Amino acid sequence: MSYGRDARGERTVSRGGGGLATALRGLVEQHDVTWIANAMTDEDRVVAGEEQRGTILLAQDPHAYDRFYNVAANPMLWFVQHMLWNLALTPDFDHDAWTSYAAVNAKMARAVIDELDRNPDALVFFQDYHLYLAPELVRRERPDVLMSHFVHIPWPESGAWSVLPPEVLRDVFAGLLANDVVGFHTDRWRRNFVRGCVDVLGASVEGDVVEHAGRRTLVTAHPIGIDTAEFDALAEDEDVLERERELVASRPEMLVLRVDRTDPSKNIVRGFRAFGLMLERHPELRGRVRMLALLDPSRQDIPEYVEYLAAVEREARALGDAVDLRIGDDFKRSVAAYKQFDVLFVNPVFDGLNLVSKEAPYVNTRDGMLVLSENAGSHEELSAWALSVNPFDVSGQADALHAALTMDPGEKQRRQAAIRSHVREHDVAEWGAAQLADLDRVRSRS
Amino acid sequence: MSYGRDARGERTVSRGGGGLATALRGLVEQHDVTWIANAMTDEDRVVAGEEQRGTILLAQDPHAYDRFYNVAANPMLWFVQHMLWNLALTPDFDHDAWTSYAAVNAKMARAVIDELDRNPDALVFFQDYHLYLAPELVRRERPDVLMSHFVHIPWPESGAWSVLPPEVLRDVFAGLLANDVVGFHTDRWRRNFVRGCVDVLGASVEGDVVEHAGRRTLVTAHPIGIDTAEFDALAEDEDVLERERELVASRPEMLVLRVDRTDPSKNIVRGFRAFGLMLERHPELRGRVRMLALLDPSRQDIPEYVEYLAAVEREARALGDAVDLRIGDDFKRSVAAYKQFDVLFVNPVFDGLNLVSKEAPYVNTRDGMLVLSENAGSHEELSAWALSVNPFDVSGQADALHAALTMDPGEKQRRQAAIRSHVREHDVAEWGAAQLADLDRVRSRS
Repeated sequence: MSYGRDARGERTVSRGGGGLATALRGLVEQHDVTWIANAMTDEDRVVAGEEQRGTILLAQDPHAYDRFYNVAANPMLWFVQHMLWNLALTPDFDHDAWTSYAAVNAKMARAVIDELDRNPDALVFFQDYHLYLAPELVRRERPDVLMSHFVHIPWPESGAWSVLPPEVLRDVFAGLLANDVVGFHTDRWRRNFVRGCVDVLGASVEGDVVEHAGRRTLVTAHPIGIDTAEFDALAEDEDVLERERELVASRPEMLVLRVDRTDPSKNIVRGFRAFGLMLERHPELRGRVRMLALLDPSRQDIPEYVEYLAAVEREARALGDAVDLRIGDDFKRSVAAYKQFDVLFVNPVFDGLNLVSKEAPYVNTRDGMLVLSENAGSHEELSAWALSVNPFDVSGQADALHAALTMDPGEKQRRQAAIRSHVREHDVAEWGAAQLADLDRVRSRS
Repeated sequence: MSYGRDARGERTVSRGGGGLATALRGLVEQHDVTWIANAMTDEDRVVAGEEQRGTILLAQDPHAYDRFYNVAANPMLWFVQHMLWNLALTPDFDHDAWTSYAAVNAKMARAVIDELDRNPDALVFFQDYHLYLAPELVRRERPDVLMSHFVHIPWPESGAWSVLPPEVLRDVFAGLLANDVVGFHTDRWRRNFVRGCVDVLGASVEGDVVEHAGRRTLVTAHPIGIDTAEFDALAEDEDVLERERELVASRPEMLVLRVDRTDPSKNIVRGFRAFGLMLERHPELRGRVRMLALLDPSRQDIPEYVEYLAAVEREARALGDAVDLRIGDDFKRSVAAYKQFDVLFVNPVFDGLNLVSKEAPYVNTRDGMLVLSENAGSHEELSAWALSVNPFDVSGQADALHAALTMDPGEKQRRQAAIRSHVREHDVAEWGAAQLADLDRVRSRS
């Protein structure tokens, strides 16, 4: 969560956006948890100075936090892990930003150690790519604490990681291996990480355990799911229903939907090209089908993201009326569109999991088809029922969109039901339980 | 070799440029070999229609050849294998160009089969990334012929390969595995290929043998070397000596040299930035040190290469007198500079091997130091004596250049002698013998 002030000067609390924050909230609500996070807003920093229960907000040095968040974590690590650098020219590795990344991690590690002083038996769960260095700093002072780290984004192979200087890369891998458990959404990212431990650190591997520097780390894959009760409720939410009525009143015969942050990893530009190519190849569909693109403008402090959003807008303009582009953040509008799509288009260059590909089919009411990139993490679970596309093959995506739009109704119904039942059975509670089961397995071993 | 016409209309023969053509020539001269190549020039196509001995030039359809060479092989495969695509926006996979690639490979396979009709016991050696599909086409008609394929460029991991649609990617791997031997310059590329066979084809691995579709393929790593006798002679060649005298007359106290094609993989832009940063950090060296960049304008039919050359020229201009940029192809000038450098700067983003890093130290007369990218294939052999740099770390490259320029003379002498003796002992003849030994090993096994 994040704090702000409203027009009257009252403190406001907003829930973190995105599927991950939603998923973690479910986990936190069911256990006695202390949530430690970096303060992001000015008001967060005020809260950080107050006595806190359940949530600890760390007031980081603003300059260091900016370098940490807007250079080292994004775009640097994010672009490395999604293979987005244009390597002939970018990046120049920024040592100063990496120093800030290390400083923010050190402050986080100190806060974790302080919390462990209060609760010596607590389990520690690190989340994602912002905190690769913290676990090793905690481990040095607390050799016996049980620690788990979940990486929510792709883990590429060693070649892509060579963007980091070797000493930095070793720190990243060693930092993660200071945990007892390291988790990923897919077996593909898990396998790449294990191979990287061998390549970068010379670690040894035995089944799903990596051994390095006298420590054993369990490396697992557990795809995250959604909170189905939340989406059951959202589907009937009054704001959602109102937006759905508006959409129904204005919708074309067939609706192709995409819902994304405007992140270069999401492959929005090629997606528009593919839709345009599909209309060129099938002019009989013009006027009958429209693409609705609900895009949340992401990370606009980072030049690469500003440029990408401009490229997205240019490409959409080139398609005229065929595309309805909405830039903004309105989750309830997204849920309304989830219910109404005929084809959901999810074509990321790379994606750790992609929760939209689970949320939207779960609430869809039209037997809508999922066109899914083979580089989305959820492809490991959903490929049997989705139409798979290669994210670099615009022509293939155009063909897949057409196949999805013209698929036999019985086949559509069968596939949609299968995705829905998979999403229901493998929900966020299962994912949370798997985290705890992994730590139990480690505890019983030692 | 390639044919042309001079001003008087007489046929001319020019030797292929680049280290690979030189290296292969040595292998060919020592054995009874038929060389089959695609006609590249108009005069090549005339020669292709004549009776030929020892060399067969195939006249490919000009349009198909253009798509094959200037789209599918370069930039497509070259950029995939050197990880140069800016994946958020490029490429769109070009199915038509891939069809041309397959057609050129089919014609090459047919020529190989015809030659096998004349010489049924011949061994077949495929070279490089232009011919991934040909081996399987030959294998179908000649199940028992011994075939070897050497890949001279990097082999990246499966994530980078996902730029190709899955069916195309399977054809590439299956094509290579139709050979009895597949060779690479380094263990790193070898290992990536073997892992890819597992990931893409589900092949099984036993030691250095990959088993797929009932066939066993030996996968080996043999770094190519230079023809030392050729470079001994070149060092005393009259044209080289003349160019060396000119260089000595105009040279600064300390000379930093780079010799490259203007290929985005060569990392020339970051190299200039690193040199500029070194001068900023050590202003006392201004006027005492200059960078000589001898750059061969490469593949200027391809837009990405035209843009990269322009970026190189912009970056050089920004450094003014500190850089002496020479665009052109004069191998003897390069050899003269090889003799005179104090620091040889080889910082590629990725490079299959990099022959300059062997040729230049071999003939150098000044105990010149080698600053070498950890992503150059030759780094596996030369890292003990070179100063290693991360190609994305401009600051680290600046520091390495300074360390090389100010290194203790005794240490320089020791390192230079070690590289020279390594290059002498592991020459191109050793590489050629290793190819034949691999096939002997396969033959004795069957």
